[in-house]
Amino acid sequence: MTRIVESPAAFRGALEVARAMGHRVGFVPTMGALHDGHLALVSEARAQGATFVAVSLFVNPTQFGPNEDFTRYPRTFDADFARCRDAKVDVLFAPMREAMYPPGFSSVVEVKGLTDVLEGVHRPGHFAGVTTIVCKLFGLAAPCVAVFGRKDYQQWKVIERMTRDLDLPVEIAAMPTIREPDGLALSSRNRYLSADERQRALGISRGIRAAMRAFEDGERKAASLERLARAEIEPAFDSIDYVAIADPETLQPVDRTGERALLVVAAKIGKTRLIDNAVLGEDRLA
Amino acid sequence: MTRIVESPAAFRGALEVARAMGHRVGFVPTMGALHDGHLALVSEARAQGATFVAVSLFVNPTQFGPNEDFTRYPRTFDADFARCRDAKVDVLFAPMREAMYPPGFSSVVEVKGLTDVLEGVHRPGHFAGVTTIVCKLFGLAAPCVAVFGRKDYQQWKVIERMTRDLDLPVEIAAMPTIREPDGLALSSRNRYLSADERQRALGISRGIRAAMRAFEDGERKAASLERLARAEIEPAFDSIDYVAIADPETLQPVDRTGERALLVVAAKIGKTRLIDNAVLGEDRLA
Repeated sequence: MTRIVESPAAFRGALEVARAMGHRVGFVPTMGALHDGHLALVSEARAQGATFVAVSLFVNPTQFGPNEDFTRYPRTFDADFARCRDAKVDVLFAPMREAMYPPGFSSVVEVKGLTDVLEGVHRPGHFAGVTTIVCKLFGLAAPCVAVFGRKDYQQWKVIERMTRDLDLPVEIAAMPTIREPDGLALSSRNRYLSADERQRALGISRGIRAAMRAFEDGERKAASLERLARAEIEPAFDSIDYVAIADPETLQPVDRTGERALLVVAAKIGKTRLIDNAVLGEDRLA
Repeated sequence: MTRIVESPAAFRGALEVARAMGHRVGFVPTMGALHDGHLALVSEARAQGATFVAVSLFVNPTQFGPNEDFTRYPRTFDADFARCRDAKVDVLFAPMREAMYPPGFSSVVEVKGLTDVLEGVHRPGHFAGVTTIVCKLFGLAAPCVAVFGRKDYQQWKVIERMTRDLDLPVEIAAMPTIREPDGLALSSRNRYLSADERQRALGISRGIRAAMRAFEDGERKAASLERLARAEIEPAFDSIDYVAIADPETLQPVDRTGERALLVVAAKIGKTRLIDNAVLGEDRLA
């Protein structure tokens, strides 16, 4: 049975009881609008030994910029609940905004360096919102293991950094990106796409595949790999925020890659902004 | 027996074992150079029900400004250990700087608002250093209750705010300032004072007492209360950073006080900077 809790105190209490009963608590923080990628995170929590799994649904306002899609971000509570119930999630935490940010709230958790590039440049303040809410959710849930998706690669690295720096007593696990059969990375924002836009969005996975093939054939020049990806993405998208080769750990740009290289993409179709990535030399696309 | 641990992992492990044995863990973070004020924090941890008490000694570099006294801050490990042993402290955590800030460390925890005034103005970056290290120490220790001194009144309020905002699972307790019989607030920095400076330093407690008397007699104008305190401090000190009446919760300046008012002082004798405070209408000085 999936128990729904709204209040932070009830959430903390439910997980305290679970821990006291000897459970290893797994935690999957989400913004709702759940898809199979999120459910893979729940499975991964179990694979990491969690015997009790909590999922949070919270569209966190502080990680959206003033011109971003906070208000139109999909809210699909009933469907999310059904998915969690089917996945045998133990607790679903769905707090109100005021419960998470009561009057007087004034703390910020930030990671420097890793957030100065890529999404950090294009979404100023975004990561401070993410790290603050995740730190807070960790404080409430005190999970043994928390699972994030590599689709948000930079977010995963930033949270990993925060957790290590602040010695938060949480293991961070990450799941590879889940894709549609045609290559489109699952994302709650895919719901924004019309049928035509959905087709055009495949430019990203085509671009990633092109760079992967070249990498397998020995190409190590970042500019060449980026150019190959961009050639697929540019015609399909209305604008590109970045198509970049970066170090998979520091996220800093590189001229020449080593045996692993991160290819990251952010681009827009209409008002819909999609991100995707792959670690060349490691990930495979169908 | 007081166990000394140097590594963060050993510290975490020792407290995990204590919690697993059913102990309520109390924690007193310090920068060492322990005095009776610190020992009062240890006693308060026990009064708050702690059955296992950890003290950390760490002169945290990130809370010192470039022109402050980080390098000359007193380091008195042997005496600190002896005091902790006598006070039956269970674990003394004395990490190296590199263990707390390994290469690549890049996270910051900040509280806005409360840190924009008083010490926050005169010691830019100070509170970010404090909240980051305290958040990290809480992450390592996962104490049930942590005790702070009201001598650092603003620090206490900032840490209380951080803990509440981030839902850190720690109760924050605070102890009234401990003073010498003549009124001087205990401080590790009192060691910097020559005999003559030690006498002059009493200007602060005289100033606080003067404001207290006027408050008891019904004075509620902040400017008048500040003037009375300042009249005692100014002749004795080489410079004053602030002598201010503020709201005890928001720390914002007030024109007229309510039935409680915070009087806060920061002033220098030579290179030594002393701070002190009292809540008028609540605290008493001998």
